[in-house]
Amino acid sequence: MDYQDNSIFIGGKPFMNYVTAVVMQFTTKNAQEVILKARGKFISRAVDVSEVAAKRFLEGSASVKDIKINSEEFKNQEGRQVRVSTIEITLSRKQA
Amino acid sequence: MDYQDNSIFIGGKPFMNYVTAVVMQFTTKNAQEVILKARGKFISRAVDVSEVAAKRFLEGSASVKDIKINSEEFKNQEGRQVRVSTIEITLSRKQA
Repeated sequence: MDYQDNSIFIGGKPFMNYVTAVVMQFTTKNAQEVILKARGKFISRAVDVSEVAAKRFLEGSASVKDIKINSEEFKNQEGRQVRVSTIEITLSRKQA
Repeated sequence: MDYQDNSIFIGGKPFMNYVTAVVMQFTTKNAQEVILKARGKFISRAVDVSEVAAKRFLEGSASVKDIKINSEEFKNQEGRQVRVSTIEITLSRKQA
């Protein structure tokens, strides 16, 4: 799994790996926030991970606090300028 | 294209059809807001449409105002309960 601070990058690994990673950040690592990040076709997956983690596993203890979308430009292997969409979903611990 | 008020449902039609629809709502129909809605794998596409419409075609005149994600439950053809993620991206006209 690809961690950086409390960020989790959503890619092509098995779906439940990501859900488990989110839940563990809040439970065993006591995180206040977890940020799910994804690009391109993995954006739909990041939304799925967020929904399943927040509503099935963390209901009442964490919820979506903020969602940002953006674009990144980069050069592909053929040297062409390419645009890809990104998403950042911030899940936040609910105060007791 | 599937309209309802100022909502545009993102599906499998050609990408630029959706971008054009968003731009037209703001330009020729003078809409104050346009809401992009999508489910499941089309969520990534809705983000792409929003980014391209707002940053390439409507830069300075409209921008993302709000993003909501949610889940819908429904019975599939085999009668099984299925969950699908949804997104709603609200694009809003910038005040001059």
